[in-house]
Amino acid sequence: MQLEKYKIDEFNHSQQAEHTRKFEFLAEGLPKVEEVLQKLVDFQIAIPSWALGTGGTRFGRFSGGGEPRSLEEKIEDVGLLHALNRSSGAISLHIPWDIPQDYKATKALAAQFGLKFDAVNSNTFQDQADQAKSYKFGSMQHVDRAVRQQAIDHNIEVIKHGVELGSDSLTVWLADGSSFPGQLNFRKAFQNTLECLQEVYAALPDNWKVYVEYKAFEPNFYSTTVGDWGQSLLYANKLGPKAYTLVDLGHHLPNANIEQIVSLLLMEGKLGGFHFNDSKYADDDLTAGSIKPYQLFLIFNELVEGMDARGMNHATDLGWMIDASHNLKDPLEDLLQSVQAIMIAYAQSLMVDRTALNEAQQQNDVARAQEILQDAFRTDVRPLVAEAQMRAGGAVNALQLYRQLKVRENLIQERGLKTVSSGL
Amino acid sequence: MQLEKYKIDEFNHSQQAEHTRKFEFLAEGLPKVEEVLQKLVDFQIAIPSWALGTGGTRFGRFSGGGEPRSLEEKIEDVGLLHALNRSSGAISLHIPWDIPQDYKATKALAAQFGLKFDAVNSNTFQDQADQAKSYKFGSMQHVDRAVRQQAIDHNIEVIKHGVELGSDSLTVWLADGSSFPGQLNFRKAFQNTLECLQEVYAALPDNWKVYVEYKAFEPNFYSTTVGDWGQSLLYANKLGPKAYTLVDLGHHLPNANIEQIVSLLLMEGKLGGFHFNDSKYADDDLTAGSIKPYQLFLIFNELVEGMDARGMNHATDLGWMIDASHNLKDPLEDLLQSVQAIMIAYAQSLMVDRTALNEAQQQNDVARAQEILQDAFRTDVRPLVAEAQMRAGGAVNALQLYRQLKVRENLIQERGLKTVSSGL
Amino acid sequence: MQLEKYKIDEFNHSQQAEHTRKFEFLAEGLPKVEEVLQKLVDFQIAIPSWALGTGGTRFGRFSGGGEPRSLEEKIEDVGLLHALNRSSGAISLHIPWDIPQDYKATKALAAQFGLKFDAVNSNTFQDQADQAKSYKFGSMQHVDRAVRQQAIDHNIEVIKHGVELGSDSLTVWLADGSSFPGQLNFRKAFQNTLECLQEVYAALPDNWKVYVEYKAFEPNFYSTTVGDWGQSLLYANKLGPKAYTLVDLGHHLPNANIEQIVSLLLMEGKLGGFHFNDSKYADDDLTAGSIKPYQLFLIFNELVEGMDARGMNHATDLGWMIDASHNLKDPLEDLLQSVQAIMIAYAQSLMVDRTALNEAQQQNDVARAQEILQDAFRTDVRPLVAEAQMRAGGAVNALQLYRQLKVRENLIQERGLKTVSSGL
Amino acid sequence: MQLEKYKIDEFNHSQQAEHTRKFEFLAEGLPKVEEVLQKLVDFQIAIPSWALGTGGTRFGRFSGGGEPRSLEEKIEDVGLLHALNRSSGAISLHIPWDIPQDYKATKALAAQFGLKFDAVNSNTFQDQADQAKSYKFGSMQHVDRAVRQQAIDHNIEVIKHGVELGSDSLTVWLADGSSFPGQLNFRKAFQNTLECLQEVYAALPDNWKVYVEYKAFEPNFYSTTVGDWGQSLLYANKLGPKAYTLVDLGHHLPNANIEQIVSLLLMEGKLGGFHFNDSKYADDDLTAGSIKPYQLFLIFNELVEGMDARGMNHATDLGWMIDASHNLKDPLEDLLQSVQAIMIAYAQSLMVDRTALNEAQQQNDVARAQEILQDAFRTDVRPLVAEAQMRAGGAVNALQLYRQLKVRENLIQERGLKTVSSGL
Repeated sequence: MQLEKYKIDEFNHSQQAEHTRKFEFLAEGLPKVEEVLQKLVDFQIAIPSWALGTGGTRFGRFSGGGEPRSLEEKIEDVGLLHALNRSSGAISLHIPWDIPQDYKATKALAAQFGLKFDAVNSNTFQDQADQAKSYKFGSMQHVDRAVRQQAIDHNIEVIKHGVELGSDSLTVWLADGSSFPGQLNFRKAFQNTLECLQEVYAALPDNWKVYVEYKAFEPNFYSTTVGDWGQSLLYANKLGPKAYTLVDLGHHLPNANIEQIVSLLLMEGKLGGFHFNDSKYADDDLTAGSIKPYQLFLIFNELVEGMDARGMNHATDLGWMIDASHNLKDPLEDLLQSVQAIMIAYAQSLMVDRTALNEAQQQNDVARAQEILQDAFRTDVRPLVAEAQMRAGGAVNALQLYRQLKVRENLIQERGLKTVSSGL
Repeated sequence: MQLEKYKIDEFNHSQQAEHTRKFEFLAEGLPKVEEVLQKLVDFQIAIPSWALGTGGTRFGRFSGGGEPRSLEEKIEDVGLLHALNRSSGAISLHIPWDIPQDYKATKALAAQFGLKFDAVNSNTFQDQADQAKSYKFGSMQHVDRAVRQQAIDHNIEVIKHGVELGSDSLTVWLADGSSFPGQLNFRKAFQNTLECLQEVYAALPDNWKVYVEYKAFEPNFYSTTVGDWGQSLLYANKLGPKAYTLVDLGHHLPNANIEQIVSLLLMEGKLGGFHFNDSKYADDDLTAGSIKPYQLFLIFNELVEGMDARGMNHATDLGWMIDASHNLKDPLEDLLQSVQAIMIAYAQSLMVDRTALNEAQQQNDVARAQEILQDAFRTDVRPLVAEAQMRAGGAVNALQLYRQLKVRENLIQERGLKTVSSGL
Repeated sequence: MQLEKYKIDEFNHSQQAEHTRKFEFLAEGLPKVEEVLQKLVDFQIAIPSWALGTGGTRFGRFSGGGEPRSLEEKIEDVGLLHALNRSSGAISLHIPWDIPQDYKATKALAAQFGLKFDAVNSNTFQDQADQAKSYKFGSMQHVDRAVRQQAIDHNIEVIKHGVELGSDSLTVWLADGSSFPGQLNFRKAFQNTLECLQEVYAALPDNWKVYVEYKAFEPNFYSTTVGDWGQSLLYANKLGPKAYTLVDLGHHLPNANIEQIVSLLLMEGKLGGFHFNDSKYADDDLTAGSIKPYQLFLIFNELVEGMDARGMNHATDLGWMIDASHNLKDPLEDLLQSVQAIMIAYAQSLMVDRTALNEAQQQNDVARAQEILQDAFRTDVRPLVAEAQMRAGGAVNALQLYRQLKVRENLIQERGLKTVSSGL
Repeated sequence: MQLEKYKIDEFNHSQQAEHTRKFEFLAEGLPKVEEVLQKLVDFQIAIPSWALGTGGTRFGRFSGGGEPRSLEEKIEDVGLLHALNRSSGAISLHIPWDIPQDYKATKALAAQFGLKFDAVNSNTFQDQADQAKSYKFGSMQHVDRAVRQQAIDHNIEVIKHGVELGSDSLTVWLADGSSFPGQLNFRKAFQNTLECLQEVYAALPDNWKVYVEYKAFEPNFYSTTVGDWGQSLLYANKLGPKAYTLVDLGHHLPNANIEQIVSLLLMEGKLGGFHFNDSKYADDDLTAGSIKPYQLFLIFNELVEGMDARGMNHATDLGWMIDASHNLKDPLEDLLQSVQAIMIAYAQSLMVDRTALNEAQQQNDVARAQEILQDAFRTDVRPLVAEAQMRAGGAVNALQLYRQLKVRENLIQERGLKTVSSGL
């Protein structure tokens, strides 16, 4: 389904008066409005190809309709999102779920929607039908060299696909670990994994990065071989300058202070990227900002502070991606909500009066420091985000327009009611 | 220190233009503004007498200055808070820390500041100097009948003080529990506790309520004899219609869904009151709304929905109290921030479009339900709260005025730099 | 595969000397050995039909070989386990995964292996191919009466199957809940669920029980409509005397004191049964006793104490079942390990010197109380369990014999390498 | 109170027959009994000086009697423990609670009891009466250079005390952190802390080590500046070869896999020492092994495996210390229980058949790997520990003899009923 630009214009026009009232109220007295708007325009969040279909749990999956049946339809879906919000201009592919048949055509299709190819993702946590060795007991940690080699080869193949598409980073999430005490020798598992990663690292093109993702638990329930930021940083440091840690918000033990982790990784020059989602209990993979929006803001607060301190470019120097599972909502609506929550948190973090905050910190004025942060958080920045997205060609309210245009109904008509997208 | 009304007026006058701009923007198009403002005016949060001094942890306490040295000075402090924000018109006493010497004079002093006496609190978790029996191994759960009797007598004495002051509820928080497997027979501990509570219940005046507070852990580290809402409800049901459950936000296991607990307790007609604070890890007793403001909003969302469903009066039918520990901030500033965060959450919950939410729920429209809640939460309701507080005679920004008037400096001059308030 | 009795005898004979040495050492000075042995002989743990195949996570499933392809083969597998350990003499069926085609034949087959039919389990957390309504947004909590009716009808049908097989209890686990704030009205969800359960309750035969299982989270990630023991107890009390709470060890928030819950439910006469497994993080469904064996012992310690206090029969008055997922181990080996860990914990709890413990508790002698419990736990009771299982006709070491007889290899030969058992 | 050797001998004599029966049963068929016994004899656990008095929580402290009133009496108490169990031959001092007045006399006293001086501990988490600057907002992280200097100076002074006493390591636990978002700049706090630690490091004698202890939370409730093992390792690596990470079992987020952390720190050559205790919820500081004995065993399993892999000496190459708080038990009884639980876990870990375990791991034989570990854990190794302690001159059951000799009653007679030991 193609979204004609005039429909967005018509919609924006119908909302113009109310938007202007709100935006002008907010902009009045706001310093550097134009600068902030530009940052918001530039900020793009990648959509993973597997997030376009309905997710599930181990207990079952309740399919939705009109899901993309091919890589092309996935690109179309992301294109649609990007047309609506102009903030999701990249797609992140997952191999082997999204192996392109014709690189040139695939790139051309993406370009047509203004989409880039973000980090490519390997998969060594499932067995594929034609696979020689099983990952039942891990991939890169495996005691059997042949399994490790298979995992290495797969990752190198993923890099090759990425190179063809113009991607410049590889995300490695390893489900490797153990579910029972005694199953693994932790040290050997670490060493095996490191050696495999070193071989993959050696295959990285010069301008590429590799992101080492960590996770506390699941699908293994006793230990995970890249289990926390400390372990990921150990790997990244041993690998070299092209290796970075990737933070997924749902991959921590209860109550972890993720914002502090972010700050320290930036300090070490080793933060590579982010997987956004939200969670209450575990790796729940819920819509970003739906459970703990203040935490999301606090993380962005550290990101902005830490990136600015290193002179980094907010939009390009870290990888930003959504990684969620859409069990109950229309995946496209869920993604629109996630992107919007991220944009809001980013905008709020740009509102923070850093000079005043620094001053309060220097004076140990704890109450004032809190006031400064909460003043930014309590400000309703939605008109600012909307203005930026409109200026970039998007809708003043992407979700509202999505519903008004009955996009899902159209997709069902095009693709059918019983569709199952590949991926989780 | 007395706060002259003209100082508040002067301050408000200086902020009037900006406030009006913000309030009018917000009020435009808001349905039932006057009704909401009235609810905000009526809503009062009690201040516990022990929260007026600097708190501490088991590792130490870093005292502040100008702390109240007597019950009278505690009442003055709450009076000061209430003069500033007009939202904290009650004080909650803790016996034996705050035994009044002269009821009449104490009541007159409180009345002078427009303060009511909220729930009175008993203390059987510490040994007092002149105490016959020790609570080392519990109070109402104790295997020794004499200890239990002492705890009963103490609670009845607390009720008597409360009656004299015009209070109408008793909060019983029992630290009783065990730190090691085997220490307690859980069933006997429950039965002993129930019997003691029954004797206390029998001593309640007709118009009184007793709140049974629960807590997951600390100061006992294996089991707590009133350990969760299920246990508290068991006690309350066995006690009778005057017994209710009291929810303290910090008294749960990690990741607990407190808003659901609130909803079910209201359904059962057994929610009695609230202790507000915030926490990241355990019973951290931080400023309300400083860590999880969205959770605070969600809880208020359930409170408003559930109370309305039962035709309850928001302001009077539940007990609202702050229960926090002020280790790092000026306690009065901390309380002003807590009250404000609570008022904001309450105001946001009044903004929720309940008809639309109900409709979305009926249609299983999950994305829309989320939009409706988040729309209320993302709205900057601070001008609404400020308007209500000004109408009631308070300052447009209580914390700002507190600082401008150098209240703490004045209190230090009056009371000295080295003061230690009684309580935790 | 049939296990001839002589093979067990041969095996036991080969181990006799060593076993006798150990058993006699342990039995020396042990009071009431024969009584304890009889209790161990009588104690039987039901095996759920879905635990006989390889489990998985939402990230994938790594199949094993020789899995049962039919209800008959499932019964054979449990029969095999029971022949080996004589402690797993019951099977728990799950409808619709295990609908019997011929009740009489099914019963005869089970009887042949000495197996009873334990609680029957309904399933309203997945959609079946031929199902009219979807459980995507819940079953008994659903806003649509037609969905609720479908869930009621299904449960009543499950009861009917159970009646035919000689079962006398129904386990209802509801995945119902919500993943996002706002999605549900908690109170209405509770009321809908209660009404449905009441209709199911009304269909229970006179001698039947219904177990209401609770779970903190998963597959829903914000709220669960039967979310903790307090909620389950509310339902059970409102339903009536045939309704009980069922405790699954993995269904709690982090750090929950499950043994206290058990004790209080027994006090209330409302503990119905148990689902055994173990976990480190969430509902990990690992082998019982593989992560927290001391917790398992402490739970049994409360069970024995509480059941004895009510004059209950350990073996028959509660429902005992394993509920685990076997992602990495041979399911039959995993089950043998689980049963053995449960038997050990039960035996240890029978070793506790209750008179001394009661005395220590009466004296607040915390150190001694701990010594008493740990003395029982630190005792190596395996020879006692082995003796009981041998006396009942089983092997002195079931797992060892299972491996020696190459049972899995035989099953693969019989049933094939690529088999997928129905269920999770 | 002095413990005459003949009393131990008399006691052992009275228990000899039963002990011999048990020990011989266990020793039969056990490989390398003598080697294991020697390791158990050599293994010594340091007792911290602050653990000899009754602990408390922020809610209160219930004092015990006969507590040591001076450093000398603390040494006597540890001497008593060591005389009883011969496994606690070291004391760990805490400055400023235990500043020696006369080094020579202090050393002579300790030598008389066969005690060494383990790591010395600094304290920058409390303000002392005569202190120029306050640690309210941290010590080494502090924004004020003068506070940081004070913390540096204090630590250097602690080293000097340690040098005089023959200690060779410094433990630095920093309570530094923040309780509210915005309070700290995490990066600057880290850098300030690192610089201070570098100055302390520079003052270390050549043969000294410094242990950087981490803690997830408490007394700060939002962030801790040395918050987890990853952060501690960052500091240790930046400091140099004399800096190590110290693990305290209670200082982690819920569900952390501590045994994996131990294994990886050993791999990196950066594990320095251990603080033993146990906990269910947070830093509960309960008796070692009283809540999760299997976890304690699993940790020792990794320690033994990892130390052996590096050719380290179990007894001397890591610092072993108890760090607990004794709120309810007689502190000396609590310490005897802790030491015994640690010795048991160590002995069990020495029982593990490492060749078989390695083989099972190589074959991904998860069930067998579990059997091997649990076989060691389920073995009743108490007779082995008792034999080692007797051979070293201790009692066959230290706690039993302690009670029989009425040690506490004697201490109360000597020192009085109302004594308060310094420290937590």
